[in-house]
Parts: sequence; structure tokens; C-alpha cells
Amino acid sequence: MRGSLALLKATMPTVPDTLAISGITGVGEVRPGDDLGTLIAGAAHLQDRDIVVVTQKIVSKAEGRLVEVDHGDTGARRRVVEREAVRVLRRRGELIIAETSHGFVCANAGVDFSNVPDGHAALLPRDPDRSAQRIRDGIAAAGGPSVGVVISDTFGRPWRRGLTDVAIGCAGVLAVLDLRGTADAGGRQLQVTEVAIVDELAAAAELVMGKDRGIPAAVVRAWFGDGRALRDLPRNAAEDLFR
Amino acid sequence: MRGSLALLKATMPTVPDTLAISGITGVGEVRPGDDLGTLIAGAAHLQDRDIVVVTQKIVSKAEGRLVEVDHGDTGARRRVVEREAVRVLRRRGELIIAETSHGFVCANAGVDFSNVPDGHAALLPRDPDRSAQRIRDGIAAAGGPSVGVVISDTFGRPWRRGLTDVAIGCAGVLAVLDLRGTADAGGRQLQVTEVAIVDELAAAAELVMGKDRGIPAAVVRAWFGDGRALRDLPRNAAEDLFR
Repeated sequence: MRGSLALLKATMPTVPDTLAISGITGVGEVRPGDDLGTLIAGAAHLQDRDIVVVTQKIVSKAEGRLVEVDHGDTGARRRVVEREAVRVLRRRGELIIAETSHGFVCANAGVDFSNVPDGHAALLPRDPDRSAQRIRDGIAAAGGPSVGVVISDTFGRPWRRGLTDVAIGCAGVLAVLDLRGTADAGGRQLQVTEVAIVDELAAAAELVMGKDRGIPAAVVRAWFGDGRALRDLPRNAAEDLFR
Repeated sequence: MRGSLALLKATMPTVPDTLAISGITGVGEVRPGDDLGTLIAGAAHLQDRDIVVVTQKIVSKAEGRLVEVDHGDTGARRRVVEREAVRVLRRRGELIIAETSHGFVCANAGVDFSNVPDGHAALLPRDPDRSAQRIRDGIAAAGGPSVGVVISDTFGRPWRRGLTDVAIGCAGVLAVLDLRGTADAGGRQLQVTEVAIVDELAAAAELVMGKDRGIPAAVVRAWFGDGRALRDLPRNAAEDLFR
């Protein structure tokens, strides 16, 4: 998609409050030790204030978070999941809903058996916020711009059918927009005080990446008439809001 | 934003799998009896296959789902919420987490005390899927194109900080993408079998609408290199997946 979003931008100032989200293709198969920042900077034409959403899968691969497991051995699969779990909330057949060491509550404690090398499972990154910061720094080190980075994964949730992508880590991007003290149009305090921006970014990115199409990252570019940006001050970059 | 996304489209074929999301301004203050389809068709330059995300607030207003309540009277507020609840899951101070008649589990049974006329509260639409279909039909009746419509609201969720927008109803748009039987790149069945597309659309739209800026709707326009569309076959349009 090199250049395409830049081309796009020329037409955007006429559009109030617009977000453009594009899948990043050409990252290629990711292997342990790969520098995702370099791969992404080379595959996408990034600009300052862009937000790059990267799926957990390639982050785990790049960080070598793969373990050998016989996919046909349900007991072995269960043991891998239980090793990653600090607390099991529910079991239904092979499915285990568990809390991870990070504090995430998700299926199989985040252990992923799809889109991984044969005979392997992918574990969540040990510190997804640090992973995001590393990618952010890697993009800059590769001569890229200053971007925000969100690491996304696919979680279920109670009470609602289907799964959505959420953020498991971020750097250089506002994780939660705090509206406490903000008034509505009628001058009353807003009921909604904290908006999980990073989760909305992860969900938006999933729409262009898909689950079955092997697009491992996306770039979100925003133009806001009021000068707002999705990027936040650096002091919030390292904030970890999900543990 | 009239015309702007159309202008945008000219540059898009060079971009693989891109989504453009813009807030719809100029809808104006919505009053009971207003035809949202006409208001939205007049405010946005829509195209076939666009998806229009409309916040519950203006749908409830247009449908006259407002009740009088003294905002200062916590007892009266509680009674309104309890009337809307079929089951109370949790109480924390004034906050009530309850299941609605639709089957949604959310704060205050979906009763909204912000951005409503003084001395009033907004209740959820009785049948949000029908509301979405009505808006879809209204846009077509106003000479607009065939679009998908998603009604969004802001819900919290367990285990994660912050709130996100989710879909409470839809028409003419795929609610849940069923990937059962789909293989991953390695030929294994995907673990993730159902993706809640409408919730991801609602979350993406929230990013441009904001909570404090009075943008009540957004248009999502997608271009997919593989010809996929976010729109689904009509038979799925009426499907209600959240009850």
C-alpha cells in the first residue's frame, strides 16, 4: 500500500473527522528474531501520528513465543493452556476461559493453535506494552515516522455472540480516553467517562485484516477537524491499562 | 461531508482493503417523530454498500423513547432503570448492571441520562433491528442508495477498563461473520469461528463520533481487493443476533 494513503490524504481535509484504515500487506512470514518495526516500516508508507495495529500472532512469532505441541493431543494442548493460566474461570469441553499473567481474561489463556507452524502453539507476548514500544522504536530506527502502536488479539466476551479484536498492549497511543469532568451538550456530566480507544482501534483494524486472509497489521490514519489526534502525550505511551 | 467520500473513492482502488470512516454532521437536533433516514440521507453523501452507523441516542429520540425523570432524584432514576431491566446482575452504588428485554446486559439497562432533554431519560429502542431497517428504508425512500445500517450504543464489559461502542441492532449488514469450516494458512481449522463484524463497525465509528462532540452518526465505506463487502445478503439483514 506504499504511497496510497499519502495520496488519499490529499482529499481528506474536506472530510470532517475521518479515519482511514488500510491493511498492511507484504510483511511476509514472520520468524523468531525478526524486527517487526523494520518489516512494517518497509511494507507500509507510514506518517507521523499514524497508528499501526499489529496482530499478536506475528508479535509472538517475532519474539519466539512458540511452544511445541501435538495439535492432536488434547491433553498436551490443555497442559500448554494451563501453564499460561494464573486462574481458570470456566471450562466447556476443550475450551478454557482463563486469566493470564497479564490479567487478561480470554479463551485458552491466549494460547493460539491457528496460523502457527505445524506442531506449535503461539503464546501471548510476555509484556505486550513493551512489545508495542519495541515496534514503535523499530519503525523509527528504520527511518520511519513517530507512530502509535497497538498490539491486537481476538477475544470473546460474555453475553454477546461472536468475537472482536481488542488491544493487549500499546505504545505512543491513548489507551483509554478519560472524559471525567466532561459535560454533555446539555451541560450535564457525561455518564460515559472512559472510552477504550485502543480496543476500538483494534476492532476497526480487524475489519480490514480479517481472520483468514493473512494480513497481520493495519495502519489507521485520522484527520480531525478540531485538531484532535488519536495519538496521546508520551507520558501515556508507557501506561499499561489492562493489568 | 457531502461529496468528500465520493472524491476520496477515486484514490482508493490503489489501496488494498481500506476502510474510510467519517462522522456525519448536520443531522441536527433530533425530535420525536423525525425520520432519521431522511435526515441522514440529507446530511451525508451516501453510496451503495456504505454502512451507516447511528447512535442509539438519536434513534431513541426519534422514536420518542424518552421518559420524564428528575435527574436529582436518585430513587426516581433507579425506578426508571428497574422498569427497563428484566434481570439485575450487579449493583454498585447507583450503578445497576442489568439485562434488558432485548437480552443486552449493560449499565442501567440501557437507560441514558446524558445528552437528553432536561428532566428526561432516553430508553433503548424497543426493537433496534427494526429501527435499523426503518432507517435503511427511510434512506432509500429519500432517494438515497441501498446501505447497511448499524445502531450503536456504549457498553462496558467485564475484566477490561473503559467502554466501547457495540451494535444493538442492524439491517442490511452482516452482523456476525461465520468462519466455521474456514482453514488457516496452514490448512487447520480457524479457532476463531465467529467475528462480531457489527460490533467492530460500531467501535470503529465511535472513534470519529466521540462522546462529547455531538456527532450522532458515521458512514463506513470499504474497498476490498478481493471483492468482499461488509454488506451481506438480505436474508441476513433481519437476523437478530443479540437476543
